[in-house]
Amino acid sequence: MRTLYDVQQLLKRFGVFVYAGKRLYDIELMELELLDLNAAGLLDESEFKKARQVLAIEYQNELKLVSETKEELVVNRKLIGIDLGGTTVKFGILSEKGEIQQKWSIQTNIDDGGTHIVPDIIASIRHRMDLYHMTKEDFIGIGMGTPGAVDIVNGTVIGAYNLNWDTLQLIREQIEEALDIPFVLDNDANVAALGERWQGAGNNNTNVAFITLGTGVGGGLIAEGHLLHGAAGAAGEIGHITVDPDGFPCTCGKKGCLETVASATGVVRVARTLSEEYAGDSQLKWMIDDGQEISSKLVFDLAKEGDAFADMVVEKVCFYLGLACSHIGNMLNPSDIVIGGGVSAAGDFLLERIKKYFNQFTFKQVTDSTSVKLAILGNDAGIIGAASLALKFKETDLEKRN
Amino acid sequence: MRTLYDVQQLLKRFGVFVYAGKRLYDIELMELELLDLNAAGLLDESEFKKARQVLAIEYQNELKLVSETKEELVVNRKLIGIDLGGTTVKFGILSEKGEIQQKWSIQTNIDDGGTHIVPDIIASIRHRMDLYHMTKEDFIGIGMGTPGAVDIVNGTVIGAYNLNWDTLQLIREQIEEALDIPFVLDNDANVAALGERWQGAGNNNTNVAFITLGTGVGGGLIAEGHLLHGAAGAAGEIGHITVDPDGFPCTCGKKGCLETVASATGVVRVARTLSEEYAGDSQLKWMIDDGQEISSKLVFDLAKEGDAFADMVVEKVCFYLGLACSHIGNMLNPSDIVIGGGVSAAGDFLLERIKKYFNQFTFKQVTDSTSVKLAILGNDAGIIGAASLALKFKETDLEKRN
Repeated sequence: MRTLYDVQQLLKRFGVFVYAGKRLYDIELMELELLDLNAAGLLDESEFKKARQVLAIEYQNELKLVSETKEELVVNRKLIGIDLGGTTVKFGILSEKGEIQQKWSIQTNIDDGGTHIVPDIIASIRHRMDLYHMTKEDFIGIGMGTPGAVDIVNGTVIGAYNLNWDTLQLIREQIEEALDIPFVLDNDANVAALGERWQGAGNNNTNVAFITLGTGVGGGLIAEGHLLHGAAGAAGEIGHITVDPDGFPCTCGKKGCLETVASATGVVRVARTLSEEYAGDSQLKWMIDDGQEISSKLVFDLAKEGDAFADMVVEKVCFYLGLACSHIGNMLNPSDIVIGGGVSAAGDFLLERIKKYFNQFTFKQVTDSTSVKLAILGNDAGIIGAASLALKFKETDLEKRN
Repeated sequence: MRTLYDVQQLLKRFGVFVYAGKRLYDIELMELELLDLNAAGLLDESEFKKARQVLAIEYQNELKLVSETKEELVVNRKLIGIDLGGTTVKFGILSEKGEIQQKWSIQTNIDDGGTHIVPDIIASIRHRMDLYHMTKEDFIGIGMGTPGAVDIVNGTVIGAYNLNWDTLQLIREQIEEALDIPFVLDNDANVAALGERWQGAGNNNTNVAFITLGTGVGGGLIAEGHLLHGAAGAAGEIGHITVDPDGFPCTCGKKGCLETVASATGVVRVARTLSEEYAGDSQLKWMIDDGQEISSKLVFDLAKEGDAFADMVVEKVCFYLGLACSHIGNMLNPSDIVIGGGVSAAGDFLLERIKKYFNQFTFKQVTDSTSVKLAILGNDAGIIGAASLALKFKETDLEKRN
């Protein structure tokens, strides 16, 4: 009596056929049957002992095998993260722990109403899979961040004007049909927030807010471990917090949005407006009056060099940013408010001033527990956060396979 | 062959003893054994058929019994909700569907450093249970809302000054030890928010914000179905959102908090300040100049009657409230922003003006999907929300019992 088959034969002699569908359960049932037969005095003692020994060994082996299989699936399977932008599409293959293992990008072809974008993405992933002999079984799933209004339930996007996507785009349907890998998408700011939270300045904390200062101002909020979408997917519209009720008109139709003063163009707008009333000596003021092109980087650089007017502009921008951060803090008390995007390249010079106003406008218990900090992932936040979206397929997928 | 016992005897004849620990599983295994024995040609056909019939009937009966037992537990067990305030402690016994079945209250005895409060609560619940012949088994759990800084993990409170609780109060420990019913607590504004969300204006939606305008301004936020606590339990500090960076000093140490202009005393403060510069005809202005006591209710009443100055005060207060609501909307996009508390008794007169400014300051996609509305539960919000906290004990408890 050496194998499970031998025990099966023994039980068969007593008309007992065990089949529960899974090897582990079969062994458990055989054990019960053996005990019963023995209790009824129907088994030879040495035969009973040997059979139980076989079952014990087989049970341990099977247990080990099941857990190894699970572990192998978990450790070796990958995530694909896609960061879809108006000029490039960035791709990453990541471990499920969030390490980027491969990274590449293609140009975004927005011609013909953006109809090439999804086919290009599919072709690029296929090419990469062929190159590295990967199959769909190697992947837990694909996550993507995209501009526009995202319907996360249906996996569609509409109104991504920098992609020429005016009409409803059935992204998930196309990608899943072509690659047969589960696909999930969310908007680009949310996805960057998830990235910075998971692998960046957010330290994988439960409550993290992310603000990106670029050509616009966007954001993503994670509260109690959940990315906030709100009733209609418009949660996290940090760029449209009203920081000055009588402020500049915004592209969204209202006035005084954070975006009008803290985006790259917003900083320049503040500089141009304040320059009209500034009378002192300043290179920045001189350049504006001279009709030269100025940029938010120039404003920060001149402020760092001691230009008094540029400093005044930075102060004003940081006042608004600190005020907006205080609203996030007083409302959500996140452990981290992470500031990223092109404008945040101004670094600690920017950060320290935002903190000054944040502390001024925020409830004490919150300033004690909420840190305002700079993002650290740069351009990778998008693919990392996008990949993290696909982690949701891990559990369901494992369940199916076992 | 009529009962499960008869089938057991049949199987025993072939040396098969089934015992899987639960009747439902036993029946399933017996079925498998029967099929195997029959496949091996060991059973008389009519015997096999009868045995299967018995198993089918027993299986249905058992299924029904299991689900009935569960349902009975679910339907008949109750929640206790406690709303602890500085003057009274309100109690409610609720069905798990949120219907208030009994309601009573006692005075809050804050003497001797508030040491009588918890014993009084315990005694009152005991008395009520005795009166109605209820035992601890009749309850899923007890939830409580309390002033002060709450540690929800440890079930403690500190710094509830209107209760004279300066030092750490081990509330859960005392109540669970005395009553042996699971206990959970949260702060009073959060609990009221849960109440309005569950049974009130929030329609049990996934994303609901609640603002209470009373002697102070408090709030509670539910996002993606979760009550937000933040990193240090300070999420939802709506009253300390800065609505005027150069505004009135607040008890919290900073300036221009919503509470300084929209609480009952805040409305009066706005009236007194604006009256200094108001030159027109106004009963309110006359009363203030005459040194009479005024209240927020008086301000709203006079505004409704057409007093131009009172109307100006209301307009200013609603500007601030609309601005704060816009911050909530732009950040969280809740389906409902519910406004409660004493000041909200001003009703639609207040609401319509808040909405005007909310619409002015909020991103379009949000105004399309977020409604600002009045609370409807009044004083019951606290006990209802507190009771809802205890729903978390339902699942774990059912698991234990089955």
